[in-house]
Amino acid sequence: MLISSRQNPMIKQYRKLCGSRRDRKEQGYFPCEGIKLVSEALKSEVTLGENAFITESAAAKYPDIFEKLSLKCNLYTVTEDISEYISDTKSPQGVFITVKSLDKILILSTIYNSRSFILLDNLQDMGNIGTIIRTCDAFGIDGIIASPDTADIFSAKVSRSTMGSVFRVPVYISDLTQAISLLKEGGFTVYSAELNRSAETLGGFAFPEKSAVVIGNEGNGVSGEISAACDKSLFIPMNTAESLNAAVAASIIAWEMQKSL
Amino acid sequence: MLISSRQNPMIKQYRKLCGSRRDRKEQGYFPCEGIKLVSEALKSEVTLGENAFITESAAAKYPDIFEKLSLKCNLYTVTEDISEYISDTKSPQGVFITVKSLDKILILSTIYNSRSFILLDNLQDMGNIGTIIRTCDAFGIDGIIASPDTADIFSAKVSRSTMGSVFRVPVYISDLTQAISLLKEGGFTVYSAELNRSAETLGGFAFPEKSAVVIGNEGNGVSGEISAACDKSLFIPMNTAESLNAAVAASIIAWEMQKSL
Repeated sequence: MLISSRQNPMIKQYRKLCGSRRDRKEQGYFPCEGIKLVSEALKSEVTLGENAFITESAAAKYPDIFEKLSLKCNLYTVTEDISEYISDTKSPQGVFITVKSLDKILILSTIYNSRSFILLDNLQDMGNIGTIIRTCDAFGIDGIIASPDTADIFSAKVSRSTMGSVFRVPVYISDLTQAISLLKEGGFTVYSAELNRSAETLGGFAFPEKSAVVIGNEGNGVSGEISAACDKSLFIPMNTAESLNAAVAASIIAWEMQKSL
Repeated sequence: MLISSRQNPMIKQYRKLCGSRRDRKEQGYFPCEGIKLVSEALKSEVTLGENAFITESAAAKYPDIFEKLSLKCNLYTVTEDISEYISDTKSPQGVFITVKSLDKILILSTIYNSRSFILLDNLQDMGNIGTIIRTCDAFGIDGIIASPDTADIFSAKVSRSTMGSVFRVPVYISDLTQAISLLKEGGFTVYSAELNRSAETLGGFAFPEKSAVVIGNEGNGVSGEISAACDKSLFIPMNTAESLNAAVAASIIAWEMQKSL
C-alpha cells in the first residue's frame, strides 16, 4: 500500500508525535527518522512502534533496512511528498519509525550501581542536548538526568543529534533538587558547573569515584536553587571572560570525568 | 530616514552579503546581527562597514548601541518587516552591521610567533565551525586555519555561533597542504585527529610547545592527502565505537592543548 494522502490517519498520528511533547508522552512513543537513527534503533533493544514508513527510493537504496523493518513493523510505502511532510529535516532520507519512550525513573538502586551522571538544568537548545547525550555515550557516563523544563529529549532534533546514542544512554527526567538529594544519599559528590572563578578548577583535581555534574541553561547557567543544592561548584578555566557553548562545556567535563572512571 | 522598502539599494546590498560567499568576498565585508555580536564588534578593533540598520524598537531598547553605531556608521532606521527580511534568525533583535573581512594570510612570521593552531579540513556545519572558534578563543588557541572548501567562516550563522569570538581569533583561509608545510617549517608538530585507535591517544601525552591539530569533515574525517601530510595522528579514546560531534572533538583537543601552553 502506497500512502500519498496527508489526511491518512497514520500519517496524521506520526506528525502529531513530531509536533508535541504532550502527544509523545500520551502515546508513549517518539519519532525517529533517517538511516543512521533507524539502523541504530534496529541494532539496539528498543521497542519499535507498530507502523513505519519508507519511500520507494529509500527502500531500493537500503534493502537491508527495508527487510528488517518489514519483519518488525507494519511497513508502509509513502510518496516523496509525504516523506517531506513528516520529516524534521530539509533533505529527508525517507525512512521513519517510532520508538517506545525511553525515559526512566531514577531510583536509589540505579544510583548505587552507577558512578557518573550529567544533569541538565533547563537546557533549551536541542542540538546541544543531543550532542551531550552523544558525548556521554562516547565517554561511558552512566546516565543523563534532565529537569522537566529541559527541552524534550525525545524530540526529532534531539534524537537526530545523538546519532543513535539516545538508544544507549539512560535518560531520567526528574526534578533536579530531588535527584541531587538521591545522588547524595547514594554517595555521589554533586558539582554545579559555573562561570565563577572561585569554584574548583576542572583539570586541577580528580573526580571522586561517584560524581555528578549539573550543566546549566545556555543563557543563564545553573539556577541558584539547584546550585545551592550541590556539594561543590566547578569552573572550566578559560583565557577570556567569555563562556563556552553548553554542549562543549558538558563534553569537556564528561571527558575529564571518564579519566577518573 | 526610515527604510521600509525591500527594494532599497542598501537593503538589497545587505541581503546580498547574507546570501553569498562570493558577494562577501567581492565586497570585502560580512554581515553581523544581534546585540551580542554588534556589542562585541564595537568593543573590538574591527572596521565597520558604511551602513548599519536598526529598528525603532531596538533603538529604544538599546540606546547605548544606537549611540555608538550612529557615531561610527550611517545608521538607518528600518521597519520590523525589513528587519525580518534581512535577518538570518527567526526572532531578529533588529540591529544589523557589516564588518570588514577578517580572513588573514598565513605567513611564516605569524607561525614563528604562535604556539597553537586548529586546522579545519572541509567542515560543513556552520554551527560547529562557530562553536570551534568560540572554544579556541576561550582556550587561547592562536588561530584557526580553514581549508577553502570549509563552509564560510563569515556567514551569518557561523559568526553568530562564535558569540563574538570571530572578532578575536585570527582566521586564515589556506590550502591545508601548504599550511601544514609552513607549520612544519616553523617548528610545529602537526596532528591529524582520527578515529584510528593506533594513533597517539589524547590525554596520554603532552603536546609539544608548538602544536597544530587538523579536524576533519563531519561525515568523512580528515582527508587522506591531508592526513598523510601531518606528522602524527591523534585519537580521542572512547568507550563506544562511535564518533564525537566535530565541534566537541575540536573543543576537547583545544582544552588539552591549552594545558601545554
